[in-house]
Amino acid sequence: MNPARRLRPLDPSVSPRFGDVATLLRAPRMPLDADIDIALVGVPFDLGTNYRTGARGGPAAVREASRTIRLVHPTSRIAPFDLCEVADVGDVAINAMDLSVSVDAIEAFFQQLHSLRATPITVGGDHTVPLPILRAIARDRTVGMVQFDAHPDTLDTLMGTRINHATTFRRAVEEGLIDPKRMVQVGLRGSQFSADDARWGREAGMRVITMDEFEALGRARVIDEIGRVIGDGPTYVSFDIDGLDAANAMGTGVPEVGGYSVRDAQVMLQSLSGRHLVGADLCEVAPMYDPTGQTALNAANLLFELLCVVAESRVAIRAV
Amino acid sequence: MNPARRLRPLDPSVSPRFGDVATLLRAPRMPLDADIDIALVGVPFDLGTNYRTGARGGPAAVREASRTIRLVHPTSRIAPFDLCEVADVGDVAINAMDLSVSVDAIEAFFQQLHSLRATPITVGGDHTVPLPILRAIARDRTVGMVQFDAHPDTLDTLMGTRINHATTFRRAVEEGLIDPKRMVQVGLRGSQFSADDARWGREAGMRVITMDEFEALGRARVIDEIGRVIGDGPTYVSFDIDGLDAANAMGTGVPEVGGYSVRDAQVMLQSLSGRHLVGADLCEVAPMYDPTGQTALNAANLLFELLCVVAESRVAIRAV
Amino acid sequence: MNPARRLRPLDPSVSPRFGDVATLLRAPRMPLDADIDIALVGVPFDLGTNYRTGARGGPAAVREASRTIRLVHPTSRIAPFDLCEVADVGDVAINAMDLSVSVDAIEAFFQQLHSLRATPITVGGDHTVPLPILRAIARDRTVGMVQFDAHPDTLDTLMGTRINHATTFRRAVEEGLIDPKRMVQVGLRGSQFSADDARWGREAGMRVITMDEFEALGRARVIDEIGRVIGDGPTYVSFDIDGLDAANAMGTGVPEVGGYSVRDAQVMLQSLSGRHLVGADLCEVAPMYDPTGQTALNAANLLFELLCVVAESRVAIRAV
Amino acid sequence: MNPARRLRPLDPSVSPRFGDVATLLRAPRMPLDADIDIALVGVPFDLGTNYRTGARGGPAAVREASRTIRLVHPTSRIAPFDLCEVADVGDVAINAMDLSVSVDAIEAFFQQLHSLRATPITVGGDHTVPLPILRAIARDRTVGMVQFDAHPDTLDTLMGTRINHATTFRRAVEEGLIDPKRMVQVGLRGSQFSADDARWGREAGMRVITMDEFEALGRARVIDEIGRVIGDGPTYVSFDIDGLDAANAMGTGVPEVGGYSVRDAQVMLQSLSGRHLVGADLCEVAPMYDPTGQTALNAANLLFELLCVVAESRVAIRAV
Amino acid sequence: MNPARRLRPLDPSVSPRFGDVATLLRAPRMPLDADIDIALVGVPFDLGTNYRTGARGGPAAVREASRTIRLVHPTSRIAPFDLCEVADVGDVAINAMDLSVSVDAIEAFFQQLHSLRATPITVGGDHTVPLPILRAIARDRTVGMVQFDAHPDTLDTLMGTRINHATTFRRAVEEGLIDPKRMVQVGLRGSQFSADDARWGREAGMRVITMDEFEALGRARVIDEIGRVIGDGPTYVSFDIDGLDAANAMGTGVPEVGGYSVRDAQVMLQSLSGRHLVGADLCEVAPMYDPTGQTALNAANLLFELLCVVAESRVAIRAV
Amino acid sequence: MNPARRLRPLDPSVSPRFGDVATLLRAPRMPLDADIDIALVGVPFDLGTNYRTGARGGPAAVREASRTIRLVHPTSRIAPFDLCEVADVGDVAINAMDLSVSVDAIEAFFQQLHSLRATPITVGGDHTVPLPILRAIARDRTVGMVQFDAHPDTLDTLMGTRINHATTFRRAVEEGLIDPKRMVQVGLRGSQFSADDARWGREAGMRVITMDEFEALGRARVIDEIGRVIGDGPTYVSFDIDGLDAANAMGTGVPEVGGYSVRDAQVMLQSLSGRHLVGADLCEVAPMYDPTGQTALNAANLLFELLCVVAESRVAIRAV
Repeated sequence: MNPARRLRPLDPSVSPRFGDVATLLRAPRMPLDADIDIALVGVPFDLGTNYRTGARGGPAAVREASRTIRLVHPTSRIAPFDLCEVADVGDVAINAMDLSVSVDAIEAFFQQLHSLRATPITVGGDHTVPLPILRAIARDRTVGMVQFDAHPDTLDTLMGTRINHATTFRRAVEEGLIDPKRMVQVGLRGSQFSADDARWGREAGMRVITMDEFEALGRARVIDEIGRVIGDGPTYVSFDIDGLDAANAMGTGVPEVGGYSVRDAQVMLQSLSGRHLVGADLCEVAPMYDPTGQTALNAANLLFELLCVVAESRVAIRAV
Repeated sequence: MNPARRLRPLDPSVSPRFGDVATLLRAPRMPLDADIDIALVGVPFDLGTNYRTGARGGPAAVREASRTIRLVHPTSRIAPFDLCEVADVGDVAINAMDLSVSVDAIEAFFQQLHSLRATPITVGGDHTVPLPILRAIARDRTVGMVQFDAHPDTLDTLMGTRINHATTFRRAVEEGLIDPKRMVQVGLRGSQFSADDARWGREAGMRVITMDEFEALGRARVIDEIGRVIGDGPTYVSFDIDGLDAANAMGTGVPEVGGYSVRDAQVMLQSLSGRHLVGADLCEVAPMYDPTGQTALNAANLLFELLCVVAESRVAIRAV
Repeated sequence: MNPARRLRPLDPSVSPRFGDVATLLRAPRMPLDADIDIALVGVPFDLGTNYRTGARGGPAAVREASRTIRLVHPTSRIAPFDLCEVADVGDVAINAMDLSVSVDAIEAFFQQLHSLRATPITVGGDHTVPLPILRAIARDRTVGMVQFDAHPDTLDTLMGTRINHATTFRRAVEEGLIDPKRMVQVGLRGSQFSADDARWGREAGMRVITMDEFEALGRARVIDEIGRVIGDGPTYVSFDIDGLDAANAMGTGVPEVGGYSVRDAQVMLQSLSGRHLVGADLCEVAPMYDPTGQTALNAANLLFELLCVVAESRVAIRAV
Repeated sequence: MNPARRLRPLDPSVSPRFGDVATLLRAPRMPLDADIDIALVGVPFDLGTNYRTGARGGPAAVREASRTIRLVHPTSRIAPFDLCEVADVGDVAINAMDLSVSVDAIEAFFQQLHSLRATPITVGGDHTVPLPILRAIARDRTVGMVQFDAHPDTLDTLMGTRINHATTFRRAVEEGLIDPKRMVQVGLRGSQFSADDARWGREAGMRVITMDEFEALGRARVIDEIGRVIGDGPTYVSFDIDGLDAANAMGTGVPEVGGYSVRDAQVMLQSLSGRHLVGADLCEVAPMYDPTGQTALNAANLLFELLCVVAESRVAIRAV
Repeated sequence: MNPARRLRPLDPSVSPRFGDVATLLRAPRMPLDADIDIALVGVPFDLGTNYRTGARGGPAAVREASRTIRLVHPTSRIAPFDLCEVADVGDVAINAMDLSVSVDAIEAFFQQLHSLRATPITVGGDHTVPLPILRAIARDRTVGMVQFDAHPDTLDTLMGTRINHATTFRRAVEEGLIDPKRMVQVGLRGSQFSADDARWGREAGMRVITMDEFEALGRARVIDEIGRVIGDGPTYVSFDIDGLDAANAMGTGVPEVGGYSVRDAQVMLQSLSGRHLVGADLCEVAPMYDPTGQTALNAANLLFELLCVVAESRVAIRAV
Repeated sequence: MNPARRLRPLDPSVSPRFGDVATLLRAPRMPLDADIDIALVGVPFDLGTNYRTGARGGPAAVREASRTIRLVHPTSRIAPFDLCEVADVGDVAINAMDLSVSVDAIEAFFQQLHSLRATPITVGGDHTVPLPILRAIARDRTVGMVQFDAHPDTLDTLMGTRINHATTFRRAVEEGLIDPKRMVQVGLRGSQFSADDARWGREAGMRVITMDEFEALGRARVIDEIGRVIGDGPTYVSFDIDGLDAANAMGTGVPEVGGYSVRDAQVMLQSLSGRHLVGADLCEVAPMYDPTGQTALNAANLLFELLCVVAESRVAIRAV
């Protein structure tokens, strides 16, 4: 490991992977003000769900599953902990009885991180979570968005409420946080509430890639499309674990069959290398539906993919 | 079965127990206005929880587990479906995004039942559920209460909120729905937030029987105490499944070790025979934490116990 | 939803998906004589199995898993509940102690449906189930058959018995219910009892597509083959869940590795659009082997695929 | 271990308990004619069940769970493998498609054992299994019976059939295999089909001890009753695992709450020391409902209890 | 909470129990030299097991299960975090490939703790773990011992090795770390390798209380015996989770049926109030055998019991 | 079945697959000296693992999962039990407390098999197991190697030890057992400890095919590469189950996402037809992490694939 780094994950050659307190990617648990480049954050919030809850258990489950993850990326050779100071800064203190108070608490937490110039990589929590994050980090400039998901999350309301896990990206566009022309949704599928649940996003200018189109194009051309849409501007990545095929992600609130594989997801995330990434999240892991631990393991691996490309981006920006 | 009854559960000698749509205790699924004596209701509400959610899955799980239940009580020989018209009236339509709207919807549903003179037996949902039920059925007269539970649920607030699964019985006393002098709590235990989490109830006049006292008295004298406290007045029974020892109830939000057995619970419920019972509920079954199905099976059996004594009480009242 | 329809599934925008009694695809539970276009039926029969039983639990499991399913198909935009009157008519009353009595009861039930001109879509039960269904609905005219399956089910006898889940399609051909020239088997694989377990079907004229051939042809050409074989004549679709790769279907009596994906199955079922479909079934879901619920979820999704193409076919036939 | 014995279980000090082929109590797998004193037999038959099947997996599960069992009883100091030649003689070859053929095959198998003068200890299989066993070993003399069970199994018919897991002991009395005056049922409980499901047995002269009476008497006096009823005559012991409290036996077809503990069962079985025991069985373990393995572990331990008292009895008889 | 304390567990009224990094009893994770009164330590070592491994996962599982635990004991009103500075000091760095190196590492870790005057409460790990702990803390003075366990762990060798989870307490006596006259074993049971597996301990002077004797004496007199044996001298408490009945502890290497309940264990641990306690451990939690999480939950609760009496003892000693 | 064979597996048309003692591929359990062509061996050793143990349970789990396997290969039509005398020879007696003694015991066992001219097909155990096997069977001539694996297992040391599951193939090359020029590794992937964990193997001359290259080449060209590398010389096949995608192999010590499918593995193994195969193993199945049984089922199927090609090779060699 890079001897210049202050912050180091547990070294598996000294501290066995089954040992000690579990943290995100085995990074050290540090307070917010520890001069961190990349902050791994847990947001155990799931009051925005309208079917099965449980994503409040996501951060804990991904911490446990992180035990499997090592130090260097096998394809890109990125060693993120050598590139950046990376820490697990713990969880936002959610008020489990109050959606609104919690959403504000999330925003405040990420504002503090933002003011400290740390790039956040978050483990949710349900897919409401990106909204307060974007409110904290994208108010000063609109961002592009790569959304990996089975569902568009661009409804106007759900059961009469405007802030929940099915309206996040519509709200973010309406609030000027996301530039819909620089947004791509990858993996939409599943039976629908209406004739076209993704219609609003499409009309707002988002590039919507359903699984039908994903299959028709092939992964390589999907990757081209992602790159074309987001370009070189500041971009945020939001990965709803239900974007994965249900065979890989039963441990989530609304698993959908017929999605892409973990390998597909890994390669798509690797393709973000060289982009200008300002943050990322991985949401909707609900461990009580995951008796094999497979969903959490996938999440930990995808979190490592996110960390690698974000770390690389962070260094590139610093270098400029 | 009593040929005079219009409403009959599925007959296991004709329709095998593994077959057909699952309903509470295999009673027929009927609309509210079907001239019902005892309405079995599901309330899949769990927004009042501050640790692990999932009790929204309770009614579905107890319906499935109800397949095991037959027609006649082995000890009392009560055949509840012969005594009363019993139906499963489905679930209250919860707004999963809004605690307050949901609590009002629960109250409205039970007001309708109450106006139709049906006695409700409810499967929750978290332990917030009794509050709106009592608002519907106890406004016209204060009721006594037998609460089987590991936790007192008499806090003032939780995370700053006043309506949740830890404040239910305090609110109900404050609102004049429960007479604390006719209330008994059975089974309190577990590490505490404060020096005495049950203090408010004790000071309000409730009879609080901790597991320490339960063991010291023995079950028979606990039963005497329950009877002494509630007397002959109208009484409601609320059974939080976490009152059972965690070995019998892992499938709940906050399992507590060191509780009573299912046998204890059965005998205590049987002891309510002859009392004036105006309703009952069984709450906090969270099936995603119940891979063996044991918690749901216990819940279905205790629901049958509740039905037997409520049916008997209903007939007795009718007879007067 | 189509306001002209009498029968409607639970509306997820009003009644949350976790709530109320579980029915097949959330369709209303109705009696047989309710003037139904498409009858969703459960047949909890598993006395025809020679390895692991448990498919008697299939209908219950698919009802629970149906909570996830919504209203409109994402690819074809078919809204089946708008096209047809669709109901869950409950389960055939099986005699769990007697194979022969049960098989007769299944036939009688489907004869009644048939006489009422309802098109049946069935959830089994083991793969014996299609035989009595075909006896009820194909006696008046031979049908074509698309069988998705890992196993041919065309043995002559099993352990000396002639009616069981390994002989179904041979019996149906022998009884003149299926035209073997209009029959295709898709997905055969797995170690065999004999040198070629599928030989009888092949010699009878069935088009047998093993997984080896499936992979060699590719899915698109398999779809062509299915269409070529069944043509425009009346056709029944039988989906043994073990046709799916074992990674998608551990919750079955005899899971077989190396099969097709759920996505493959979905697209193959969608390709039946425009065919003349007279009924369908989905068999061999055994939930006690499915702790993640993945198999049941797949089954519910495939059931929705079947409903969409059958509803479309039903309308087309009506239109003629 | 007794050096005089030809047949020895795997020695845990040499062959680790996690190793090698699993057999009942780690006894050697031998053919029937190996000059065996006590034959451990598997009967993987579950066609006699009318709710949840799966007891066909019982022998396999108990073999795996047997890995935990050692050599000497901690209380009685009985070392059964030193006292007798004990072998696992494998499973009766069941015809999974045919109840009647299977029941005959079971009888034939045990007749052969009986003619070889081996005392059988059987792992079922559902609770139909004792009937063909008794037909094989009790035709020449009526036996007494200790039945540990939640259910009486003395119905006349079930779904119109006469041989199934709910009629076994009535048939056996009718066929003169059991002397009902020397029969005791221990642990009956659970909701009933009729006003008194146990009535026939009671009227036939059986001593029926419900859980209500069990609790009222206390275990010690129950043991006295068992001894008084069976006396010194030849006696068979049949243990339905659902006799145990459901907290100890979820892995069975019809778990019933409120039963006795494993400790209670152990002490009751130990109390059979000194009786004249001619065989025993342990039925209704269904491992697919037993994700923790607890039910199978209990079964293996109770099997060891049975072996100890049967071995002692066998030696005593030989000594006479 | 006591404002005088530097070290505080996560406050459940601020930080929800499902949130943030999991630590033992939610105590802060601190380095060894943080001026700690009571150090909660994980020892993820399981190379001393001869049947099923997995106790290396014990500390992680108990950390997760600790989320349920609150701040004050319900019976004794002890608030341990107010009495003492309590921290989770992480896990000993085990060498998973080398028993001997690991045992030395454990000893070294506890020597350091001992030299810092912290009282250790440990979560194992298999039951080899107490040996190196005692080598670290009992070299300067022999201690008394309360061992809760199903097995005596006083063999001489296992498979030819002298240091393993079945020889721990013999070695500790031989090395002069434990005074066998001040040692009591509670709960021994289960089939045995030899005629009396506990013989060595008995002959060395230990007070051995089998489950047979436990039941005969009753819990209250067992508690008297424990007190009589250990007296007022320095005493260590070692709780092997398999001391609990298997119904409460399937998540362990060698579950044994017929043990005491969690309630029994709690009351026995509470009875140690007022004794001179120098350390404690809780071993043999193997979470991969614990799909319900019940074993880990029991362990977390018993750990809290241990903390309460050790904290009280620590204060008492300090007060002297 | 070939009537010339002495040794036959259980015939599923007589002995149902759920019945009798479980053996590897249902082959008869025979002693070593039974004149066997192909010996199926269990090696329940997992002391070489540095993360999660449990592979000691592999042989037992694969024996149970073998119940599903039949007699003839569906593609090649190979009927291995007709070609060769195949037996399950049980497990090597491991010393669970001592890695070194166990490794020697494994070697001795396979030396005996080797001297008896039986070809071994082994179920591990962790991936240390091939080293002592190769020491037994490859000392007289260096072999080629096809290693299916996510990890290279060519480290020099792990935690300071030289014999463990991460160093196996480096040791085997160093000891002259494997010719690295005739060795191919298929499927490497996953986050790494160092910049290139596979470097040593590559430099030693092994053909390393990562998943990136696997995908780039396509399966057909990977098969060509395997054939090119191993040529016609004597070759051993070692299949670490973690070579499969984690979606197919959660039941292992270190599951890695993004691997190949079971179908891919099957076809690659089938491609070994015609090669000179001197032995094979399948390692790292850890059933306690496999609640669905999918990993063990995959292992049983791959074991059958191995048996088919090894049997064919054995006959070919004999024929020469």
